[in-house]
Amino acid sequence: MLEDKNTHRTHLSELGEFGLIDHLTKDFPIVNPSTLKGVGDDGAIIDFGDQKAVISSDLLIEGVHFNLSYVPLKHLGYKSIMVNLSDIYAMNAIATQVVVSIAVSNRFPVEALEELYEGIRLACDIYKVDLVGGDTTSSTRGLIISVTAIGMAPQEKIVYRNGAKENDLIVVSGDLGSAYMGLQVLERENEVFKVNPNMQPDLESYQYLIERQLKPEARKDIVLLLDKLGVQPTAMMDISDGLSSELLHICKQSHVGCRLVEEKIPLDPTLINACEEFTLSSTMVALSGGEDYELLFTIAPSDYDKIKGNPNLSVIGYITEPAQGCNLITRANEAIPLKARGWNAFR
Amino acid sequence: MLEDKNTHRTHLSELGEFGLIDHLTKDFPIVNPSTLKGVGDDGAIIDFGDQKAVISSDLLIEGVHFNLSYVPLKHLGYKSIMVNLSDIYAMNAIATQVVVSIAVSNRFPVEALEELYEGIRLACDIYKVDLVGGDTTSSTRGLIISVTAIGMAPQEKIVYRNGAKENDLIVVSGDLGSAYMGLQVLERENEVFKVNPNMQPDLESYQYLIERQLKPEARKDIVLLLDKLGVQPTAMMDISDGLSSELLHICKQSHVGCRLVEEKIPLDPTLINACEEFTLSSTMVALSGGEDYELLFTIAPSDYDKIKGNPNLSVIGYITEPAQGCNLITRANEAIPLKARGWNAFR
Repeated sequence: MLEDKNTHRTHLSELGEFGLIDHLTKDFPIVNPSTLKGVGDDGAIIDFGDQKAVISSDLLIEGVHFNLSYVPLKHLGYKSIMVNLSDIYAMNAIATQVVVSIAVSNRFPVEALEELYEGIRLACDIYKVDLVGGDTTSSTRGLIISVTAIGMAPQEKIVYRNGAKENDLIVVSGDLGSAYMGLQVLERENEVFKVNPNMQPDLESYQYLIERQLKPEARKDIVLLLDKLGVQPTAMMDISDGLSSELLHICKQSHVGCRLVEEKIPLDPTLINACEEFTLSSTMVALSGGEDYELLFTIAPSDYDKIKGNPNLSVIGYITEPAQGCNLITRANEAIPLKARGWNAFR
Repeated sequence: MLEDKNTHRTHLSELGEFGLIDHLTKDFPIVNPSTLKGVGDDGAIIDFGDQKAVISSDLLIEGVHFNLSYVPLKHLGYKSIMVNLSDIYAMNAIATQVVVSIAVSNRFPVEALEELYEGIRLACDIYKVDLVGGDTTSSTRGLIISVTAIGMAPQEKIVYRNGAKENDLIVVSGDLGSAYMGLQVLERENEVFKVNPNMQPDLESYQYLIERQLKPEARKDIVLLLDKLGVQPTAMMDISDGLSSELLHICKQSHVGCRLVEEKIPLDPTLINACEEFTLSSTMVALSGGEDYELLFTIAPSDYDKIKGNPNLSVIGYITEPAQGCNLITRANEAIPLKARGWNAFR
């Protein structure tokens, strides 16, 4: 049927994930005055009077976003909540509720889903969010998890992607690239296991990396810290696709350029060791790895003293006028254009 | 991995769709004062001060909820929005925003997704809701659509499932069973088409039934009508699984019994003809067919005069004390216990 109707067929890969959603939603008008922000940021913003609601939604598909041969279901449940809470925190809001829908094939026993919900419950417990709804249904193949998170913030606290100004400092929380290297380690061990199921992997030296991949934490603490420090970011995003991809989003939506300083990118020593072992560039991994769920934001230069020396935060560059473009300043002090090589759902 | 860990395996079908979600979410506490209603109704209710938000979410899976060999993508897009808006109206709220996430395999060209979004757009346009976000990703097989709808209502207007009182009247909008018979017709034609692709089906006499299946309308008009008539339902649900299943939910959650009068169940003449042709009982189809997306609600007897004679509404029975159970009063004036034979996702 599809074949007959469409004389011209455009392959999905021609648009890519962001191109596709932009393309499909470009003609949708906004008619409700309560819609303060629609498609195009980490979350939508809805006006409920006193408080504004932030809504974010993600769909996780077995075989695309996770592989159950090395991801325990409890961790998967935990992570599926983190991925969404991270989007709420990236708007500088506090997550309050989640709605979780799952579709499963009959190969899953109830006990497997109990494990999944144990992880969901742990995440709700630690992050103080309420599970308020959801739908369970069957799938023809595999496990599908859909999570919608709801958060709240007063309007003046909400941070979009488009507020970065020339001379603002670029700041990132935690360290980058470890979640990606954790995945590389897990995939390698999975291949080894397939060849020799009796082999006991020694993963101790990779523990930090694997934990970053399997059990990431959304940075609610950073939202609370910024509030405590009296810092209102000018733009913010969470790092799900990779530092370069997210920074390019902020620059594009804020109509500015940037200079990202390679030597300032925070890397864990375990990551540096693993990159050497896998003969990968740690800078490339940090720029393009994704799934770190750290917060990337920009602040006015006058706020620098408030964050200076905080072990959770690293200043990694600054915003420039748009004409200068978006560049990485290498250790050799060369400027090379930043490219979005982040994880692309349709590659 | 799953096999090794669990010594006891409970098959999903042992719990069923509602049993499963109850089972998985029973230990989740509510910690946020803004959570007014969690799992267990058509939607969750969140307190945003002046207005309350109603949130509802559904996951639609190709091969489980729809068959693209006879469901046009534009209709599918439209229906996926209707299914969710219907849950919002079932709480007596007005839908204001939707978030739509899709996962697709590479067999879909961009043009196919454009058709899907045309239907979504048409639904948003007619029902005055804003598409405010979403996620697109790839799937290993088929099309998956996840929709979350957001609505608003002042607290005193919101209607739950648990408010039905003894002597309340049971009311339903529109007519029942037609969506199910539309599906029977489409499935029959699809089988005929597989055998003889040159056969041109004559579907004109089934047009109403097919439209009810492919392009259902959520009853926003009924919410507005009840407001205009000054009727506040005591309990309400939308009919997605079938009249008997939904009525049993209301009775169980309200701790009441009911008497549903067979001859009062509204049926379209086209449905009666098709049921004769397919040798199906039209009462059974109306009771268990599902996907009608009509509103089922209870009202105080004193409100009867306000709705009497309205062509959109039928009084189909009344609420009793719980000891009397839930019964269908047949045309032969016999009372037989109502059974939930509604569509079960895990049958």
